[in-house]
Amino acid sequence: MKTLNDLFEDTLKDIYYAEKVILKELPKMAKKASSPELKEAFESHLEETRGQVERLEQVFKLIGKKAEGKKCPAIEGIAEEAKEIMEEAENDSVRDAGLLAAAQAVEHYEMARYGTLCAWAEELGHDDACELLEETLEQEKAADEKLSEIAEEGVNEDAADEDDEAQAA
Amino acid sequence: MKTLNDLFEDTLKDIYYAEKVILKELPKMAKKASSPELKEAFESHLEETRGQVERLEQVFKLIGKKAEGKKCPAIEGIAEEAKEIMEEAENDSVRDAGLLAAAQAVEHYEMARYGTLCAWAEELGHDDACELLEETLEQEKAADEKLSEIAEEGVNEDAADEDDEAQAA
Repeated sequence: MKTLNDLFEDTLKDIYYAEKVILKELPKMAKKASSPELKEAFESHLEETRGQVERLEQVFKLIGKKAEGKKCPAIEGIAEEAKEIMEEAENDSVRDAGLLAAAQAVEHYEMARYGTLCAWAEELGHDDACELLEETLEQEKAADEKLSEIAEEGVNEDAADEDDEAQAA
Repeated sequence: MKTLNDLFEDTLKDIYYAEKVILKELPKMAKKASSPELKEAFESHLEETRGQVERLEQVFKLIGKKAEGKKCPAIEGIAEEAKEIMEEAENDSVRDAGLLAAAQAVEHYEMARYGTLCAWAEELGHDDACELLEETLEQEKAADEKLSEIAEEGVNEDAADEDDEAQAA
């Protein structure tokens, strides 16, 4: 890795791999979610993610490279934590709170990566690529905010009610 | 995992483990950084991280639990990516750009986790814990912004200069 262009390409491959992992994991999370709002948020983000993969393929094309992924240990680790929640949570509302939190960790990883990629694309004069990456970055931020709203509007409270019931029992 | 309290404790253990990993990795990143501003940012964040570990220990105490970590695959994966950059970058300015990006991925993971922990602490009525977690959350956001400034003020441009030199050669 000798140039910023090399680093840019390498990080594109990292997030391309990550998006493919997310495409595989989101349907499982949507299936396991019990809150209709959370399920819908996962499903609509799955649709957005398909568009994000396409945009990444356009970025590869713009820089004259073949779209390919490179194993991304970060997303594997984050996805593993989501899997643990699905296995370990013993009731619906606690599982929902944990899945929502896991999804926010995914969004934050993507925000970090797309933020970096936008800055590098700009520095390298890849203006068209920069616009595409910026569009995805804004979607990730909006998805994270939407999840915070869903948490505040009921998912966290429902999970806390399990604590009251556990104490009353 | 039956209650939100269980999930809160489990996530506290996750981030406590993560902070310990960060305490181990930041000095290596500071050592490898070539830009004085980046090196200083890593060193000052190392100092902050020590305070964050102490605050987590206070939170464990407030909820009457022993401070202990639980293996966090997400931070292991993120740290692995930082290690790859240190090994694969063939010159100082490209390594700096990559290390800065890796540090922002760490900050974003922490922002996601502390954001979730704050919301859960509030929901569970752990007001004192919530304040401590909020303090750390604000530090992580500030650290991320500081890194973006350092990137914009020279680290990215220096790395892009390697591209110009590579083209001229």
